[in-house]
Amino acid sequence: MKAEDFKSMEKVRREYLKKIRQLSFLEFSREKWEELKKLVYKVVPLDVDVVIDDTTLREGVQMAGIVSPHPSDSCRIACLLRDIGVERLEVLTYTKSDQEAIKRMRDENLGEILAAWSRAAKEDIDLALKLDFKQIGISHPVSYIHFEKWTDKPVEQLFTRVTEAVEYARDHGLTIFVHGEDSTRADWEFEKAFINTVADAGASVYRICDTVGCGVSDPQAPLPHGIPAKVAHIKKETKIPYIEIHAHDDLGNAVENTMATVRAASGLYDKVYVSTTFLGLGDRAGGAETEKVILNCYLHHGIDKWNLSPLRELAMFIASSTNFNMPLNKAIVGDSAFAHESGIHVHGISTLPLTYETFPPELVGHERTIVVG
Amino acid sequence: MKAEDFKSMEKVRREYLKKIRQLSFLEFSREKWEELKKLVYKVVPLDVDVVIDDTTLREGVQMAGIVSPHPSDSCRIACLLRDIGVERLEVLTYTKSDQEAIKRMRDENLGEILAAWSRAAKEDIDLALKLDFKQIGISHPVSYIHFEKWTDKPVEQLFTRVTEAVEYARDHGLTIFVHGEDSTRADWEFEKAFINTVADAGASVYRICDTVGCGVSDPQAPLPHGIPAKVAHIKKETKIPYIEIHAHDDLGNAVENTMATVRAASGLYDKVYVSTTFLGLGDRAGGAETEKVILNCYLHHGIDKWNLSPLRELAMFIASSTNFNMPLNKAIVGDSAFAHESGIHVHGISTLPLTYETFPPELVGHERTIVVG
Repeated sequence: MKAEDFKSMEKVRREYLKKIRQLSFLEFSREKWEELKKLVYKVVPLDVDVVIDDTTLREGVQMAGIVSPHPSDSCRIACLLRDIGVERLEVLTYTKSDQEAIKRMRDENLGEILAAWSRAAKEDIDLALKLDFKQIGISHPVSYIHFEKWTDKPVEQLFTRVTEAVEYARDHGLTIFVHGEDSTRADWEFEKAFINTVADAGASVYRICDTVGCGVSDPQAPLPHGIPAKVAHIKKETKIPYIEIHAHDDLGNAVENTMATVRAASGLYDKVYVSTTFLGLGDRAGGAETEKVILNCYLHHGIDKWNLSPLRELAMFIASSTNFNMPLNKAIVGDSAFAHESGIHVHGISTLPLTYETFPPELVGHERTIVVG
Repeated sequence: MKAEDFKSMEKVRREYLKKIRQLSFLEFSREKWEELKKLVYKVVPLDVDVVIDDTTLREGVQMAGIVSPHPSDSCRIACLLRDIGVERLEVLTYTKSDQEAIKRMRDENLGEILAAWSRAAKEDIDLALKLDFKQIGISHPVSYIHFEKWTDKPVEQLFTRVTEAVEYARDHGLTIFVHGEDSTRADWEFEKAFINTVADAGASVYRICDTVGCGVSDPQAPLPHGIPAKVAHIKKETKIPYIEIHAHDDLGNAVENTMATVRAASGLYDKVYVSTTFLGLGDRAGGAETEKVILNCYLHHGIDKWNLSPLRELAMFIASSTNFNMPLNKAIVGDSAFAHESGIHVHGISTLPLTYETFPPELVGHERTIVVG
């Protein structure tokens, strides 16, 4: 390599490191960090508002092997989520404990952001109305595999069933989201007709449910598994005003499928809903983590609408109130997320924390740990 | 909707479900499952061979908060990984315990697939030679941020340092991989020159290290964070024969960044290396899970080169031998990965397991659990 190449690299390096050193800190400063972030990470701006519908208190608590939090704990979880900036909270309505939690949330003025989970059944909608919900999510399968449980019901009857449920909810003043269960294994001709049917009946959002986590984030992946393809087809071929993503993590792709939806929705919709669970709690392998989706949006796309500082506190509280053994190496909020043990890493960290940290732990209310191995 | 639309959907549905029913099973049959898989999942074939370099016994065991397995346990982990079809095993060489484990692995005829992790230092390479390694991975930072620890060393000297190390290893008959630490925050002009330098010195593989997990899988994402962009640039602008990915999970994107590399390498390279850790063990939030990458390649891209049945057994063994509290909802191998609790799910599963399962648990040596909630 030529001498001038080295000279040029050396110059770029020295200037870059000088700036970084000026913005580095031992005492956390949000302002300095934001400057540092601009220097280190290239933000790709998006043309869409990301609305989080956290379902920790519906999908999350249904997870096998954890306990349902006490209503007062559920209420505290909901309040912390609201403090972070979550704009819709999905909850269960069936048990006395669910209902007690809802009452407490209402007392904390969370009524407007609560959404009931419901089957396409009058009795569920009546229950939501009785509990004074303003928003309801009506869940209905859209894949033929899931119709196996209804061998006796022809498709026409299934359309009637969901139409009646949506119209009933609409006629009683509810804002309606429809969850297309197993969307990523659905026949597109059926799903398209289904989406148009629920849109006609009054639903404002269609939730793409990647129920068994087989969705693919690659923009080239075809229907039904390809998530960006599905977003584009829904925009082009249906009349539903908004879309949402609910991704499961059976193959480890939940966060990325959620982010793929956000990217695909950018420029097509003015807002996109993401259905996430804190810590990724949920059936089987759980779902996309609320905290990971927030940090992805923040770091990669410069979305600065959430309050990040309660993230660690909320993680600890959910783990203790559900008896969930949070893995040490849980990204962002786990005990080891900012722990450094090996000699090289500890040296790097003590010189410049950014060396082995994506962002400073204080940003999410966490702290750095140096472990003597 | 028109009557003929319903009729056509009904026909498609009945025929599809008839085939699925014929291929469904209570007793697991690999042959029937492969047929069922073809019917349900659209495979996107890739034009690249995926070579797993598992680093559980290097990156994994360095994780803060777990214990290093006993040499006999390390050896058993290595044997099970070999049984699965892992083609390269990265291990540590520094302690007596590391060396005892290596000796045992050699006794199990794993010598050819072992690779030493090494700094760009003669002493490390000498140690690998003394331990009779055939392959070595030489790690060197490529981002200016990481050069902060070497304020006194000009870039020219860093190039000399790595060149000498690679040449020394080459001259002693080792196959050489070079790990570009913090590649996703590197200046491309520097990194390009670095890759060409190590290729000239005799390295056959360049490992893109997403050291702090800030890489992005989106094909549109720009350098340095955009992983597919990096793959394309390396192919176009450097002479390194092969590439590898080592992705961290600080933002939850490790699996997807690994898969994005595989997809981007397809058609450009005849093989691509993926550096993964079982269960995602590793520094801070760990890395891309070996088991998830395998299942993604298998289910989405039809790659059928690995033996899947020891996956659950290996997961349980690693967790117990490192004292790692494996999360219940760990995808594929966790206790709850095939657990069904809520009423609707249990009903679906008992009608047709595929309803709430991506693939049958027996495929990975696991089992279905029905939890009475």
